[in-house]
Amino acid sequence: MPSAVILLADGTEEMEFTITYDTLVRAGVACCSAFVPAGGNGSEKQEYATGSRGIRIMYDKVFEEGQFPPASYDALVIPGGAKGAEIMSTNTAVQSLVRDFLAQDKIVGMICAGSLTALSAKLARQPLTSHPSVKAQLDNDFDYSEAPVVISNKLVTSRGPGTTFPFALTLVELLCGADKRAEVRAPMVFPPDTPF
Amino acid sequence: MPSAVILLADGTEEMEFTITYDTLVRAGVACCSAFVPAGGNGSEKQEYATGSRGIRIMYDKVFEEGQFPPASYDALVIPGGAKGAEIMSTNTAVQSLVRDFLAQDKIVGMICAGSLTALSAKLARQPLTSHPSVKAQLDNDFDYSEAPVVISNKLVTSRGPGTTFPFALTLVELLCGADKRAEVRAPMVFPPDTPF
Repeated sequence: MPSAVILLADGTEEMEFTITYDTLVRAGVACCSAFVPAGGNGSEKQEYATGSRGIRIMYDKVFEEGQFPPASYDALVIPGGAKGAEIMSTNTAVQSLVRDFLAQDKIVGMICAGSLTALSAKLARQPLTSHPSVKAQLDNDFDYSEAPVVISNKLVTSRGPGTTFPFALTLVELLCGADKRAEVRAPMVFPPDTPF
Repeated sequence: MPSAVILLADGTEEMEFTITYDTLVRAGVACCSAFVPAGGNGSEKQEYATGSRGIRIMYDKVFEEGQFPPASYDALVIPGGAKGAEIMSTNTAVQSLVRDFLAQDKIVGMICAGSLTALSAKLARQPLTSHPSVKAQLDNDFDYSEAPVVISNKLVTSRGPGTTFPFALTLVELLCGADKRAEVRAPMVFPPDTPF
């Protein structure tokens, strides 16, 4: 069974988190949400993250350095939401983990403002997208694209809540194959002519 | 500021709950999540609902009879998820509240298996949709449609996770107008040619 770590912080866009986690679970991926505290490392007393629109989501684990070795997981996902993405992208342990996952040929997904972590982790110039609101911070250092989902080797980036379904289905396809993507997609009942 | 009550239970489809709540908050709608306990009425000790794919969401209030008078709210939303929708649709206080909201010309939204509440609340025959998996339970008593979103006076029904964005944006339009719908939709960055 493939497995994924999905980061969560105060200010995370709760649709981007929830759609990704839920869609991966539907595909049989073992998901673990990891709460990144605002103050860097350290044990956090609260048991939940408050999303960008106020939904409080309980996390599975607190993110701590060394707790999520790439050898034990198949994917790492960094959702958006301006404040949540700021917490994640400025966390040096998160930056290291992104580099470690990619170095070990594991998938890293970033969506919306989560793509800022590609910059803070100093990833090499490559194709990438993000929420339009942070494009100006990224387009000097990456080959910026406005495609809904951009795959660059094992780095998968996407734009916002409206592209989270195709982002999550792309992760399913990379982790579990095209047949599983189709199997997961059908009972979600997308409107006719949905372009993904 | 318009206001909405969004029901939540163990087994609720967390994407349907989260997309609706978040999108309404983006439109400036005051949202309250109300936890419907599995055993009917009564105070529940746990502070969260466990969604259909394992995401634990903390609720704002426990649903109790008389706590959400239609005079104080503009919309009531019943999400899907088979087990969550069963809890809600078989709760007699929920059934009464659905009738009361519609009788007072307030919006009632039902999505996915949440549409079973239209049957248990004994609503009159009218156009309606649902998740395909519960169509057979509904199509004798309603004018069943396979449109992504069906508006029948103040009853708005929809199909599944894949139709939750157009469902939520329809609620925004009905509560806040077409301009607000467009304003909320733009920064979500749907892929080009998305049909809603």
